[in-house]
Amino acid sequence: MTDRVERGFPVEEFEARAERAQRMLADSGLDALLVCTEPEVRYFTGFHTPFWQSPTRPWFVVLPLSGRPIAVIPGIGASAMAGTWVEDVRTWPAPRPEDDGLALLAETLAEHAGPGGRIGLPMGPETHVRMPLADLDALREEIRPKVFVDATHVVRSLRMVKSEREVAKVAHICSVVSDGFEGIPMLLSAGMTEREAFSAFRMDLLRRGADEVPYLVGATGPGFDDIIKQPSDRVIVDGDLVMFDTGSIFDGYSSDFDRYYAFGWADDGARRAYKTVWEATEAGLATVRPGATTSDLWRAMATVLDAGGSLGNSVGRMGHGLGMQVTEWPSNTADDQTVLEEGMVLTLEPGLTWAPGRMMVHEENLVVRAEGAELLSRRAPAELPLIS
Amino acid sequence: MTDRVERGFPVEEFEARAERAQRMLADSGLDALLVCTEPEVRYFTGFHTPFWQSPTRPWFVVLPLSGRPIAVIPGIGASAMAGTWVEDVRTWPAPRPEDDGLALLAETLAEHAGPGGRIGLPMGPETHVRMPLADLDALREEIRPKVFVDATHVVRSLRMVKSEREVAKVAHICSVVSDGFEGIPMLLSAGMTEREAFSAFRMDLLRRGADEVPYLVGATGPGFDDIIKQPSDRVIVDGDLVMFDTGSIFDGYSSDFDRYYAFGWADDGARRAYKTVWEATEAGLATVRPGATTSDLWRAMATVLDAGGSLGNSVGRMGHGLGMQVTEWPSNTADDQTVLEEGMVLTLEPGLTWAPGRMMVHEENLVVRAEGAELLSRRAPAELPLIS
Repeated sequence: MTDRVERGFPVEEFEARAERAQRMLADSGLDALLVCTEPEVRYFTGFHTPFWQSPTRPWFVVLPLSGRPIAVIPGIGASAMAGTWVEDVRTWPAPRPEDDGLALLAETLAEHAGPGGRIGLPMGPETHVRMPLADLDALREEIRPKVFVDATHVVRSLRMVKSEREVAKVAHICSVVSDGFEGIPMLLSAGMTEREAFSAFRMDLLRRGADEVPYLVGATGPGFDDIIKQPSDRVIVDGDLVMFDTGSIFDGYSSDFDRYYAFGWADDGARRAYKTVWEATEAGLATVRPGATTSDLWRAMATVLDAGGSLGNSVGRMGHGLGMQVTEWPSNTADDQTVLEEGMVLTLEPGLTWAPGRMMVHEENLVVRAEGAELLSRRAPAELPLIS
Repeated sequence: MTDRVERGFPVEEFEARAERAQRMLADSGLDALLVCTEPEVRYFTGFHTPFWQSPTRPWFVVLPLSGRPIAVIPGIGASAMAGTWVEDVRTWPAPRPEDDGLALLAETLAEHAGPGGRIGLPMGPETHVRMPLADLDALREEIRPKVFVDATHVVRSLRMVKSEREVAKVAHICSVVSDGFEGIPMLLSAGMTEREAFSAFRMDLLRRGADEVPYLVGATGPGFDDIIKQPSDRVIVDGDLVMFDTGSIFDGYSSDFDRYYAFGWADDGARRAYKTVWEATEAGLATVRPGATTSDLWRAMATVLDAGGSLGNSVGRMGHGLGMQVTEWPSNTADDQTVLEEGMVLTLEPGLTWAPGRMMVHEENLVVRAEGAELLSRRAPAELPLIS
């Protein structure tokens, strides 16, 4: 199978990211940016490996006010990092608990920020600092009187607006997953266990071209309210609903949408719930345009859910950003108020509870265009599909 | 396919974990333990979902000095957490950036620690605090004069020594992956691209019974030193080495070992390097016994590598702990000095560079028994295997 979409990014993509970040750093009076989590390091460098699953070693990237980012990383990553656009790769022999990169990092920061310097570090919602807290506390002491200052706004506003190359990767994996969902009626049948159904769907997505299927949750039964569930040995029977939600990956970019099906037949409550979340999504889609806010999307969807008799849901929002991670900033909530811009990739995810313990969540992926929403997932059928 | 190994854990497994932790907390003068990362939360509660891939919401578990752990989590997880042995599940409607669980967590901590209380929190090597740093700083202020105190030793010493139920899960996935590696000569052939080879191997492992293959790296060529590599479009040709290293998963427990093959033929350097890392592993295996240290393992392997003319390697250690994560404490290094105990699951991973840019790393998985090492991976062939 040939990939229709180019892998990786040309250097100009990374240059554009760095330059935009550097302008924001300067505007915020910051001397450099420090990042240490997988998506941020990948965003600025292109460094792409599942090795982050090993918690042993911290990894650091420093973006100065001009020029390319500087990698301050464990020796094991030197060869892989040398293959990116980063030219300045500094390593230490990790793991080395007595100094796991701190001296090297402090020295690197000192080259770019004077004694009273301010180093941007993401500290806000949806971020965390991926290094031992004892090391972070020591580093904060070590760099004084330099200080770390919250720079969530830099990575947030950069990553929220995708380049066309990024959109193409999300669009590709959404297309693969749409194919997979449309094939579900041929793939699943009553009598399978949840675990067998999961396994069949995962393999099918890989066969269709997903690089990985790291996020796959689902549930079966007459109704359910756990929508982040792992499979059990429960046997699927006629009359069951089945829900799958997957974040599948192409070249480091994720889809994130779900689909519901009914085996054989569905009761009125489930069919009405499906119709309501589908219509809520329509209302959300119709509201998407540059200048609208995530709260506008929330309100448009909430109005339809309320009219449909929703008893609420536990998700806490009705969609979110999407890209290098299965969920990203912003959140579609009543008070998020993020202003939509062209190039933002979002999910719409209205959910309702139609009876105690029975929740239904519908999800689509889109990119914000000048003229409104462009769907990246293929629109779900307007009626709850039956698997006969 | 029927799983030969039971999934999940009975409540007594979690009781034993909690009781051991509670003894250590009391011995350390701590009033409670706070954990907030996936493996620690899963270890104490059994809560198992890929939802952690979403960075949006923090999750907290508080283990008091007696009784069951208390979950302080986003509402979206309530139903899943209610299915575990945890009885006290407290939720807030996350995401809620203005208070993403802080007040609820502070209140929960206050129930278990007085004003001068000390809350254990893992802060040391291989840990991080998975919540926004601004929130962590605010929480530290909020709970004063209570303080967070490093409790890495609690989770480290608990998680390093596996129960027989945990060992059985690692053993099962190691067996699945051993089958997969033994099938590689039938699966791969010269003319495939790296990407095709990766995809074929990933699907094969899933077909053989791995739940997931989240960690898969590899490389092909006459030699390479990037051992955390993602696949490229490079076409495999005769004379190439191929290396795959995978952390595949069964029921939340990981394997972690690699294998090398040569297509058609291998030069003397590669064959000698293979023989040396294989012999180094033999020396490591012979050294494993309760009471020996990780540094004894390191020395046994280093001696063989030095005698084999190793030019060093960039890995920084020669194996590590293994279990819920693809790498865990401890590290086999010259100065780690962790004393081996029965029930520890370890990798041995000696590596050498035999020519500039050409590194070879060999890996096996084992459990420490009274009488020495019990292999969990099926021992690699003593000579570099050829794929004809």
